[in-house]
Amino acid sequence: MASRIVPLLNRVVIRKLESQLKSAGGIILREKDDKDLQIGQVMKVGTGAMFDNGKTRDMLLKPGQNVLLPAYFGQEIQIDNEKFYIYKDTEILGVLE
Amino acid sequence: MASRIVPLLNRVVIRKLESQLKSAGGIILREKDDKDLQIGQVMKVGTGAMFDNGKTRDMLLKPGQNVLLPAYFGQEIQIDNEKFYIYKDTEILGVLE
Amino acid sequence: MASRIVPLLNRVVIRKLESQLKSAGGIILREKDDKDLQIGQVMKVGTGAMFDNGKTRDMLLKPGQNVLLPAYFGQEIQIDNEKFYIYKDTEILGVLE
Amino acid sequence: MASRIVPLLNRVVIRKLESQLKSAGGIILREKDDKDLQIGQVMKVGTGAMFDNGKTRDMLLKPGQNVLLPAYFGQEIQIDNEKFYIYKDTEILGVLE
Amino acid sequence: MASRIVPLLNRVVIRKLESQLKSAGGIILREKDDKDLQIGQVMKVGTGAMFDNGKTRDMLLKPGQNVLLPAYFGQEIQIDNEKFYIYKDTEILGVLE
Amino acid sequence: MASRIVPLLNRVVIRKLESQLKSAGGIILREKDDKDLQIGQVMKVGTGAMFDNGKTRDMLLKPGQNVLLPAYFGQEIQIDNEKFYIYKDTEILGVLE
Amino acid sequence: MASRIVPLLNRVVIRKLESQLKSAGGIILREKDDKDLQIGQVMKVGTGAMFDNGKTRDMLLKPGQNVLLPAYFGQEIQIDNEKFYIYKDTEILGVLE
Repeated sequence: MASRIVPLLNRVVIRKLESQLKSAGGIILREKDDKDLQIGQVMKVGTGAMFDNGKTRDMLLKPGQNVLLPAYFGQEIQIDNEKFYIYKDTEILGVLE
Repeated sequence: MASRIVPLLNRVVIRKLESQLKSAGGIILREKDDKDLQIGQVMKVGTGAMFDNGKTRDMLLKPGQNVLLPAYFGQEIQIDNEKFYIYKDTEILGVLE
Repeated sequence: MASRIVPLLNRVVIRKLESQLKSAGGIILREKDDKDLQIGQVMKVGTGAMFDNGKTRDMLLKPGQNVLLPAYFGQEIQIDNEKFYIYKDTEILGVLE
Repeated sequence: MASRIVPLLNRVVIRKLESQLKSAGGIILREKDDKDLQIGQVMKVGTGAMFDNGKTRDMLLKPGQNVLLPAYFGQEIQIDNEKFYIYKDTEILGVLE
Repeated sequence: MASRIVPLLNRVVIRKLESQLKSAGGIILREKDDKDLQIGQVMKVGTGAMFDNGKTRDMLLKPGQNVLLPAYFGQEIQIDNEKFYIYKDTEILGVLE
Repeated sequence: MASRIVPLLNRVVIRKLESQLKSAGGIILREKDDKDLQIGQVMKVGTGAMFDNGKTRDMLLKPGQNVLLPAYFGQEIQIDNEKFYIYKDTEILGVLE
Repeated sequence: MASRIVPLLNRVVIRKLESQLKSAGGIILREKDDKDLQIGQVMKVGTGAMFDNGKTRDMLLKPGQNVLLPAYFGQEIQIDNEKFYIYKDTEILGVLE
């Protein structure tokens, strides 16, 4: 269902990943409840950020990437009983290869 | 009645949508009371945003679009017993196709 | 008496309108006490806003327009026993046609 | 004694006016104690404001003008047992013609 | 001893003046304890302010001038049992001629 | 495992160092518990910082450097039972040669 | 040991000076405990500050200078049982000749 969402500007739609996920790189994460879960997958990305002078830049992230989430910021949305989180791309800490 | 309102700058007039709305994409939303309702429809859009250097840019949204609303920001207005909410376009999380 | 006031920069002088006002567009507003009254009329406008680089821009509003007021910001002034409110034009939500 | 003061940058020296003052335009103001008094007269003006890029602009006000004071900001100074208030010109709400 | 201090950027070293000082213009000030004393003399000035774009500007004040002090900001320093205060030149309210 | 992390923008991944570490320069550090540990090693660096005008700059740090950590900012992440901290390069106090 | 520290950007490493220090100019300072000690010596300086537009500027201070410290900001670091403080050069009040 996330596919229907077109995030605005430099926002990204994230689905938080279960703790025992083996990412491509074989990373096993510590067990945490959903609120603190730090790893997520990019479902959708916005059209890009806009600078104060009106120019725009490309997104920092791509759909499908596993990412490290900050402790704050993300806004929870509930669609079709599925929970997603919306962040700005600049708030994401890093990508997990 | 929202049609009488011309939002200033990059503001948009939003009508919050009932929870069990099937958007074009067939999305069914979780039941919530009005305050937390996260989906709305764009009724009217402003003339565009103005940057610090005085230049302006086009609106990010168009009337008729279903949008994902942030948990904060929106200001409630009451006109002809109908409730609307005014946001800045940059505060809207995304568009629901 | 508001006519004596020349607002500075991009400020506007607003007189709040009674609740049951039929604007040009025939809009009837919900009954509220003065503090929450959301509709007002532009009595006077300033000379324009000034950007950080010193350039100025025209006002966003004109005397006589009915406008939607934000919940915060406006400063009350009392002149000749008449109550007016001073806002910056960027704080006004929209115009009621 | 205010004449000895040369305000710095875009500051202005204001003497608050008694409530029952008839300004040039014949305005009679509501009775208030000094703290809330909203009308004042410009005694002295600074040399002009300076923008972030170092350029300067002229003052917005001239000595002798009656002005509308904001509820906050002004700093009280006591010289020769006379009370004055110092504001930045951008903080003044408007001029009373 | 203040002569040994070279203030950095647009800072100035101020010595607060006793209350009953007759400045050049013959101004007699109200009696206040040191903390509230609003008049001071410029002892030393810095090399100038630096804008965000790296350009610099000259100081607004010169050693020897009597100045009006703001209620806040100044930082007290104690050198050789003499008390001085360090402000940024933009924080000083005005010069007393 | 930190090698799988690609920090975003000007972020760096830091592993805090035990207190009795002899750095290349033979520095012995004071015994502290993990929370206050001020020394860390750069494991991974981001792709560079982005200025408001969209231009980017190189990173200030390189993998392998020992660095002095600020008392605040760093965000703890837990991967494969190993604790790392993510900072922005501008938050790091200095490099220990 | 401070010599091993390379401060980042426009930071400086300061060692606070004992109170009864006779600086080159013969200044004797008031007795204070370490926390309030206002005089320090520059041990090391960073590579320079960076403006928002990416350009850099030289440092304002040089190693060996005695400086006046602000009441706030400095971050304490402990290396080899020696206490140092890290400030940004713009936070330092002035130089003691």
